[in-house]
Amino acid sequence: MTTIDSTVFTTETMTVPGGSETILRGGRDLFPLLPAAFHGIQRIGVLGWGPQGRAQALNLRDSLAGTGITVSVGLRAGSTSADDARANGFTEEDGTLGELLSVAAASDLVILLIADAALAAQHETIFQALKPGATIGLSHGFLLGHLQATGQDFPPGHPVIAVCPKGMGDSVRRLYQQGATVNGAGINASIAVHADPDGHATDRALAWSVALGSPYTFATTLSSEYRSDIVGERAILLGAVHGLVEALYRYFRLEGADPITAYERSTEAVTGPIARTISAAGLPAVRAALSGADQDLFDRAYSATYQPARDLVAEIYDEVAEGTELRSVILAESRLATRPMTAIAGSEMWSHSAEVHARRGATTTIDPVTAGLFVATMTAQVDEFAARGHVWSEIVNESIIEAVDSLLPYMHARDVAYMVDNCSRTARLGTRRWGPRFQAAYEQLALPALANPADPKAIESFLHNPVHEALAVAAELRPSVDISVT
Amino acid sequence: MTTIDSTVFTTETMTVPGGSETILRGGRDLFPLLPAAFHGIQRIGVLGWGPQGRAQALNLRDSLAGTGITVSVGLRAGSTSADDARANGFTEEDGTLGELLSVAAASDLVILLIADAALAAQHETIFQALKPGATIGLSHGFLLGHLQATGQDFPPGHPVIAVCPKGMGDSVRRLYQQGATVNGAGINASIAVHADPDGHATDRALAWSVALGSPYTFATTLSSEYRSDIVGERAILLGAVHGLVEALYRYFRLEGADPITAYERSTEAVTGPIARTISAAGLPAVRAALSGADQDLFDRAYSATYQPARDLVAEIYDEVAEGTELRSVILAESRLATRPMTAIAGSEMWSHSAEVHARRGATTTIDPVTAGLFVATMTAQVDEFAARGHVWSEIVNESIIEAVDSLLPYMHARDVAYMVDNCSRTARLGTRRWGPRFQAAYEQLALPALANPADPKAIESFLHNPVHEALAVAAELRPSVDISVT
Repeated sequence: MTTIDSTVFTTETMTVPGGSETILRGGRDLFPLLPAAFHGIQRIGVLGWGPQGRAQALNLRDSLAGTGITVSVGLRAGSTSADDARANGFTEEDGTLGELLSVAAASDLVILLIADAALAAQHETIFQALKPGATIGLSHGFLLGHLQATGQDFPPGHPVIAVCPKGMGDSVRRLYQQGATVNGAGINASIAVHADPDGHATDRALAWSVALGSPYTFATTLSSEYRSDIVGERAILLGAVHGLVEALYRYFRLEGADPITAYERSTEAVTGPIARTISAAGLPAVRAALSGADQDLFDRAYSATYQPARDLVAEIYDEVAEGTELRSVILAESRLATRPMTAIAGSEMWSHSAEVHARRGATTTIDPVTAGLFVATMTAQVDEFAARGHVWSEIVNESIIEAVDSLLPYMHARDVAYMVDNCSRTARLGTRRWGPRFQAAYEQLALPALANPADPKAIESFLHNPVHEALAVAAELRPSVDISVT
Repeated sequence: MTTIDSTVFTTETMTVPGGSETILRGGRDLFPLLPAAFHGIQRIGVLGWGPQGRAQALNLRDSLAGTGITVSVGLRAGSTSADDARANGFTEEDGTLGELLSVAAASDLVILLIADAALAAQHETIFQALKPGATIGLSHGFLLGHLQATGQDFPPGHPVIAVCPKGMGDSVRRLYQQGATVNGAGINASIAVHADPDGHATDRALAWSVALGSPYTFATTLSSEYRSDIVGERAILLGAVHGLVEALYRYFRLEGADPITAYERSTEAVTGPIARTISAAGLPAVRAALSGADQDLFDRAYSATYQPARDLVAEIYDEVAEGTELRSVILAESRLATRPMTAIAGSEMWSHSAEVHARRGATTTIDPVTAGLFVATMTAQVDEFAARGHVWSEIVNESIIEAVDSLLPYMHARDVAYMVDNCSRTARLGTRRWGPRFQAAYEQLALPALANPADPKAIESFLHNPVHEALAVAAELRPSVDISVT
C-alpha cells in the first residue's frame, strides 16, 4: 500500500526511485482538521506509560486541546508509572487516569502501548473490554506477529490501525515540543490500516499521526511495518551498532590504541560525527569527508563488510518473516520469570564512557574503518529491504532516519550499552541474539579482509544507490532540528 | 527409557546418581551373537559416505565378516565419494556399492547417513523405495526433528531404530581399529527404539551398536537423543568452544600476551591439557592440577561463568525442544542456494595455528582462566541436561566424553576453526548461531567479573556435582586408548 485515500487531508505525491508514493506532510496548521479526521472518536485511551505511551499521550492531549476530544491514560492497578502520569496532568479526579481495562472500555480509540510481553498476555482481556466498534490502535506490528505465531486474530468489527513513529518515545515528545517554534519538527511515522469496517480508519490514522507531530506520514501494511521494525532494531538500529562497537573497540585496542582513543574511534565516531554527517548530508557524505589514504581505507572497509552484513540482515529477515524470531522472543519471555535478563554493559569499554564524554569539545573525527563498516551495514539493510519490496519511505525511515536522528543521538548522550539495556524487551532480546552475530561477522570476516583492495564495483554500486535520492526527498519534508538529548 | 530388554545379549546394571541404568558392555567377544541379534537382516545398506557413513560401513563390514550378512554402500549417482568407497572395497562388481535408492530397496536395514539437508529433501523418496518391513536406521535425531517441524511422520509398518555414536566418524573408525588389539576400544553409543512393529528392534539396535565397536551402549529415546545432540553441539561440543577461544584469545592479547602465548593459553590449553585431564581423571582434576593463586583464579573464573553459561544452554535447549532451532536451520539451508556459508577461520588467531603446533613438546600448561570458563560451561550443560531429565549416560557422553575423547583431540590435531568448518552442516550452522553468543557472554559477563571473589557455594556445588560419580562409572566401562588423530 503506497496510496492514501483521505477525505479530510490533502496528501502529496513524493517521487521516489522507480515511482512515487503518496504521503501526508504534517504540521500544526492541520490541527483544526483533527476532530473531523478522528471521525466518531470522543475519547482516546492510551494504555501504558512507557516512553512511547508517555510521549503519545502528551502529544495527543496537546494537539487536541480545545477540541473536546479527551485523552486518558490507562495503567494496570499499582503501576509505578502513575505518579509520573499525575505529575504530567493525567489524574483520576478529571477521569484522564484510570485502570487499564476501565480506560479501554470507555474509549473510542484504544492505543495499545503496554510492553510487548504484557500485550501478549493481556490482549484477549483488553479486546473483550472494548466498546462495540471501538478502534484498536497499535504503534508497531508486534501484536500482529504474536497473533500469527499463536494462531489468533484481531476481533471482528473493530477498525485496526497503526501509527508507528520512526523514533524513540523520548524523541517523539522532544521534537514535538520543538515543533511549537519550528513548524514541522517531529518524528516521521508510518500508518497502516489493517481493518476498516466503517470506512474511516485511514483518516483516523492520519489524524493520530498528525497529532503526534509527524513531519511526514507514509503508508505501509501492518505486516510490512512489523518486519522492517523488528529486523531494523536487530540490525542497524541497535544490534549491529552494539556488535560493531564491541568488535571495533577491541580491534583498535589490539592495534595499539589506548582505551580512550579506541572508544573514540569506534563508539564516539558512530554516534557522533558519522550519524551527524548522514543526518545532514546523506551516506556518500561520510565517504566524501575522507580523502586520500583514509578514503581508500573506507572503501576497503566498505568492500570487506557489505556482503557479510547483507547475509546477516537476510538471515534476520527470514527469521522475522517466518515467525521463528518471535517464537524465540516468546520462549525468552517465559525464561525471564526465573532467569533475569543479563546486562550487556559489563564490557570494559563502557567503564570509559564518562571520561570520553567529559573530553568532548575537541573534534571527534570520522574513523575510516568504523565509517566503512557502519555505512556498509546500513547500506546492506537498505538493499535487503528494497529487495524484499518495502516502500522507500519505510526503507529510509527504518534504516537511516530513525538511526541518525533518534537512536544514535540518544546513544551519544548516554552510551550504546545504556540504550541497549533501556529499550523495549523485544528489542533488548533481539540485540542480545543478533549483536554478537554482527560482532562475529566483523571480527571473523570484515576486519581480516581490510588489507584486501577495495572492490570498485561495490563502491560504484554504493555511490549510485537509489537510496540516496530517496533519502534526499524524505529529508526535504522535514526541517533541520536540534536532535540532542537532554 | 533406561532399561533394555534383549533376548540375545546379557545387559548389565550401571549404578548412577539417584538410581541405575541398564547398559550393554561391548566387545569383539560378542560378534558371534550378531547374526541372531540382527534378526531377519541379510543385507545392510549404508546410505552416504560422509565421515559417519564411511566409518559405520567399514566397521559393520569388518564385524560381520563371515556371517553372510552383507554391507552395501548407497550413493547418489555421480557422487564424488564413490572412488573412496571403491578404494575401501565397496564395489559395483560384487553388489556392495550402488545407487542410493537401489541400495535402499535391496536392504533389510537401511542406515540413513546422508547429510541432514539431503535427508530433509529425500526422505520421502527413500521411504517409498523400502522393502515392506525393512528397518529404518538413524544415527542422530535430526530426521525426527525435521518430521515434527514439518508435520510429517515415519512410514508405518517399519521398525525405526537409532544407534548414535558419541563421537565423530573418524573416531568411530579409528578406535574400532584400535579395538583389534585393545578389546573394548571404541566410541560409546546410545540406542533408541522409535517403532518396533516386529518386536526385534531392540536387538537389532544393540547388534548395530556392538558391531560399530561401542564399549558401552545405553538407551534413550529418539527425542531425547535429538535434543541432547543438537544442544550439545551448539554448546560445549562446538559452539561454546569456538566462542570461548575467540573471547579468550583477544582477552589474553589485551592483557599483553603475544599472539603465540595468547593462542597457547586459550585454544591449546582447552584442546590439550584440559581435555586430557578431564579424559583421564574427571572435571575436579582440572581444578586440583592448580594450586594457590592459580586455583583461586580458577574458582573466580568458574564462579563468574557458570550462570551466564547455564542461561545460554537453557536458551539453546528451549529453542531446540520447541523446534525454532530446526526451523532456523531449514531457513538457512534455503539461503545457502544463493549465499554460500561463510568460513569462520578468518580470525587472526588461526594464522598462528601452524606455528603453535610446531612448538609443541614444551609442556602446555592449564591456564586457570581458560580452565575456569571451560569447566564452568561444561558443568552448566551437565546440570541443564540433568534438570531436563536426561539419563546420566546421555549426559556424560554428550557433554564430556564426546568432547574430551573425540572432538577436542581432533581440534588439537587440526584447529578449532577447521573443525567448525568441517562438521555436519547442521552443526556448522548451529556453531555460527551460538558461538558468538557464548563469546559475548564470556566477554560481557564472565571476564569482567573475574576480579570478584569466588562464590564458595558455586565451588562447593561443583566439587559435589553427581556428574563426577556418573563419569567415573562410565569411564570404567572403557579402556584407556590412544585418541590421537592421524
